[in-house]
Amino acid sequence: MNNFQYFAPTKVVFGKGTENEAGSLVREQGGTKVLVHFGSGSAVKSGLVDRVCRSLEEAGIAYVTLGGVKPNPRLSLAREGIELCRKEGVDFLLAIGGGSVIDSAKCIGYGLANDGDVWDFYSKKRQAKACIPVGAILTIAAAGSEMSDSSVITNEEGWIKRGYSSDYCRCKFAVMNPELTYTLPDYQTASGCVDILMHTLERYFSPTEDSMLVDGIAEAMMKTVIHYAKVLAENPTDYNARAQIMWAGSLSHNGLTGCGLVRDFASHQLEHELSAMFDVAHGAGLAAVWGSWARYVYMEKPQRFAQYAANVLGLQVDYSHPERTALEAIKETESFFQSIHMPTSIHEMGIDLTEEQIQELARKCSDNDGRTIGGFKVLNREDMVQIYRMAK
Amino acid sequence: MNNFQYFAPTKVVFGKGTENEAGSLVREQGGTKVLVHFGSGSAVKSGLVDRVCRSLEEAGIAYVTLGGVKPNPRLSLAREGIELCRKEGVDFLLAIGGGSVIDSAKCIGYGLANDGDVWDFYSKKRQAKACIPVGAILTIAAAGSEMSDSSVITNEEGWIKRGYSSDYCRCKFAVMNPELTYTLPDYQTASGCVDILMHTLERYFSPTEDSMLVDGIAEAMMKTVIHYAKVLAENPTDYNARAQIMWAGSLSHNGLTGCGLVRDFASHQLEHELSAMFDVAHGAGLAAVWGSWARYVYMEKPQRFAQYAANVLGLQVDYSHPERTALEAIKETESFFQSIHMPTSIHEMGIDLTEEQIQELARKCSDNDGRTIGGFKVLNREDMVQIYRMAK
Repeated sequence: MNNFQYFAPTKVVFGKGTENEAGSLVREQGGTKVLVHFGSGSAVKSGLVDRVCRSLEEAGIAYVTLGGVKPNPRLSLAREGIELCRKEGVDFLLAIGGGSVIDSAKCIGYGLANDGDVWDFYSKKRQAKACIPVGAILTIAAAGSEMSDSSVITNEEGWIKRGYSSDYCRCKFAVMNPELTYTLPDYQTASGCVDILMHTLERYFSPTEDSMLVDGIAEAMMKTVIHYAKVLAENPTDYNARAQIMWAGSLSHNGLTGCGLVRDFASHQLEHELSAMFDVAHGAGLAAVWGSWARYVYMEKPQRFAQYAANVLGLQVDYSHPERTALEAIKETESFFQSIHMPTSIHEMGIDLTEEQIQELARKCSDNDGRTIGGFKVLNREDMVQIYRMAK
Repeated sequence: MNNFQYFAPTKVVFGKGTENEAGSLVREQGGTKVLVHFGSGSAVKSGLVDRVCRSLEEAGIAYVTLGGVKPNPRLSLAREGIELCRKEGVDFLLAIGGGSVIDSAKCIGYGLANDGDVWDFYSKKRQAKACIPVGAILTIAAAGSEMSDSSVITNEEGWIKRGYSSDYCRCKFAVMNPELTYTLPDYQTASGCVDILMHTLERYFSPTEDSMLVDGIAEAMMKTVIHYAKVLAENPTDYNARAQIMWAGSLSHNGLTGCGLVRDFASHQLEHELSAMFDVAHGAGLAAVWGSWARYVYMEKPQRFAQYAANVLGLQVDYSHPERTALEAIKETESFFQSIHMPTSIHEMGIDLTEEQIQELARKCSDNDGRTIGGFKVLNREDMVQIYRMAK
């Protein structure tokens, strides 16, 4: 086990009716003027935004609203939010939505609390020194942004999608009512489940040894997600399934399953380029590339895949040939993706990659050969090309 | 799954050499004058207290010291600490030790930040409104106080041991270097492992249904603790074993394994009276009473014990007679306690309880019939008498 830091200070308020506590939670945090930030669709139609605003009013807290956040949230809207908040004297950002809305709020928070261009942080030019406090009312179990230190923004100039992580942006509170996710389209529910599974998988496939406790927690998380993703494919309004998935979503990306481990996260990086270029659902993109990543890297440490096979998928391990069990586990994981109608290749998302596009994806993902990705196996630009070709 | 709140804001700094970061961590929290609080033994002799003080000096932070905390920490010393801190203008409490020292610091923190008598909080007369910030340098993996909201203090007037819980006292940071626990006596190491196991067990034995994720996390935790407790009985300087146990200690009592569940905690309450009256090691006391508690309650929901048998102990479940498996699991758990030289009855701790003492323990534990204990099965004073008799 390596040295590590773990810091997940978000106050989680979980369960039915909890969105009505928004006002008192903002007040507890000392917020006096709130930006209520949301997407374009269901949060408004369902009356959730209105309910949250009423809760703020009842707590005597002033607010302005900014909707219109799109999946793979855009820098331009965040810039607009920064300007609006400066003008209105906003001191608390309340995101109603999933990862996209929360990430957009985090970006606004960085922009408000620091001088200069907010894109500097995402393009790794400099480090943020603060962030205006953010709270979340979660409506999609997927990104885990409600407890994580990360945010991802897409810059429309060049369609570059980049993440920035720091403890400053961790949500002060996260309100999680599983019932708010009942009305998600099946595809988005499934895509969220894949994202959650992958946040744990990307930490689990680590070169670090001696990780029994963290492994066990990760395995419990993955078993739960696989089990309840299938339940939700049949019955989207199963409260317990929604609740298990939602809580797994937060725990899978708040750092818990990575304590003491070198993380991988290559599939995430490969997918970020895909969704920046083609605007695909993040979870679906992850399902489309993961099998190819896994087949490209499994020989680094086939025993790790065998452990996953046994403890998560319940497969029989062939101990004299762990590589056989590894391949079986990869196939079984892809079968799971298919069972919840997720793609296992890029063309299943309606994208027929040309060789030129593959080269461009790898060029961007490697920052023009400026970085490698992955911890389980370190991947350079040429490796990325190979994996995109396999995933095609 | 029930509605729940989860709030574990402590910044964990885990691994070798981390105690040297104490100064910068206090500075990060804005502390300017520190009370360095510790026990009477090894933390001084090993030079750890000196090392931490040096780290404070290097960070330019003034401090005063107060040692002498005993296991089952006393109210009188905490009162002394409150007075000292008022006089010296202390604004940060740094506990170097295990649960006793951290709990003593939390008690001082409550006393400093609130008017009136600090015992009022522990005797449930009123609620605290604040706590001076506490940080911990952990030297014993056991109580989990470094991430928990609880503290337990013994009032020498009547030898009453009472806990008080609130989020105010949660440590700002917890420095955890597993190497600092190498020199613990075997008995204390084992006693700590039991305490850790029990913090999870007392949440796991819950009447709440639909808890797959939390169950899985709890089971991973318990398997890890049982495995590495045995390793440490053989090799007390196995770094990985110390590390797994230490991290399990924090996670088992920061609320994670209780999310959405009604908790039990009857064994803890029964043991608190024992250690208040006889000053036994808390973990040993827990081992001494748990089997009797389990035999008294298992028929409430024998399937729960059967799940524990299968998923934690690896026993075969007799599904047509889960009560048989339950009894087997209780026996197996006691065998584990014995394997690490922990008692499974009170007389093994050198205490021969008289019937009068049993009645007094139950009277105190039930607050003169003023409260019941337990969530798996609710226990009144007469139930307590029965369990103490069985555990005798």
